[in-house]
Amino acid sequence: MKYPKGTKINNNKHFPKSSNARGMALEHDINLTNKYYIENDIALIYKKPTPVKVTKVDFPNTKGKKITDGFFEIPSTTDYNGVYNGVYIDFEAKETKSKTSFPLSNIHPHQLVHLERVTRHKGISFIIVRFRDLDETYLLMESDLTNYIKNNTKKSIPLSYFKTYGHIIDTKYIPRLDYLKVLEKLEIFGGNHEKK
Amino acid sequence: MKYPKGTKINNNKHFPKSSNARGMALEHDINLTNKYYIENDIALIYKKPTPVKVTKVDFPNTKGKKITDGFFEIPSTTDYNGVYNGVYIDFEAKETKSKTSFPLSNIHPHQLVHLERVTRHKGISFIIVRFRDLDETYLLMESDLTNYIKNNTKKSIPLSYFKTYGHIIDTKYIPRLDYLKVLEKLEIFGGNHEKK
Repeated sequence: MKYPKGTKINNNKHFPKSSNARGMALEHDINLTNKYYIENDIALIYKKPTPVKVTKVDFPNTKGKKITDGFFEIPSTTDYNGVYNGVYIDFEAKETKSKTSFPLSNIHPHQLVHLERVTRHKGISFIIVRFRDLDETYLLMESDLTNYIKNNTKKSIPLSYFKTYGHIIDTKYIPRLDYLKVLEKLEIFGGNHEKK
Repeated sequence: MKYPKGTKINNNKHFPKSSNARGMALEHDINLTNKYYIENDIALIYKKPTPVKVTKVDFPNTKGKKITDGFFEIPSTTDYNGVYNGVYIDFEAKETKSKTSFPLSNIHPHQLVHLERVTRHKGISFIIVRFRDLDETYLLMESDLTNYIKNNTKKSIPLSYFKTYGHIIDTKYIPRLDYLKVLEKLEIFGGNHEKK
């Protein structure tokens, strides 16, 4: 993004408003939140790099390799993972333009398998879904996501399901999208996961 | 890698021996081990994709985007992370040709910071170092790595330090490099990290 000269940019204050940037707004909000968590020593959660298959490299100068041919791969896991007080956290985040439902085609089948596995290995796994035009962001635990898929033939999850089983995440100033607070309120961490 | 036609390939049995493939041998061994952990429902540990900065894409056909310009970025975290019985696991793996010491230049300063943070957030963090020509692979906990760096001015860790403070990981048939077993023997997981 380019800004007029002399404009002060503070990453924690800037919020993309252009329609062009809106598709990335959720990712931007989560990255800001994770940055806040890291800087305030609350948690260590990162976005994984997008998997790229590099098929050709070039050495145009002494500075190093340049990729001249490659393509994006389908991710085999989720976008975000990390640690909060010793507990493994893993989630996927998606935005939808729909005002009524979240199309399941947004999540790859192997990502669903991955989220289920995380729960089985006693990690905390969920999805964060933003209904962009409603400006509502929900956290839905993997167990509730899986329950819906197993008991419904529909290819999308209605908003009403998020209202009933999901948990709204407020969009604030700082931290932007405090999803760990939502998890804390759910009391899913228990108090006995301390390592010695 | 290319194999003569008709050669049966079994990923779990194949072990790269050519000098060309040797540089990747540790990564290959860890990937096989992680695959074993996942398939046997022991743990969920993945290698993160290599971070790539894509600067130009092309649309040569309907199949999708092709990267025509990009470069590799310095990773801000480590290569491997995941979950084992609810506990967050995070490590970096490196090989060295040296028979006497491990050059610290192999690990980026922000990776050291990251490993320290993981420990502070009650995750389990360590490095796996292979002395290639000795065929010896060690696991060194982050605390012992940090202790060495803080108390020494040398730019490399001598093999003797790994022998004293590190833990040898046997290279076996299956699983190839059972580092979780080493961690279990260290009893660092305790018995009280169960979630309710």
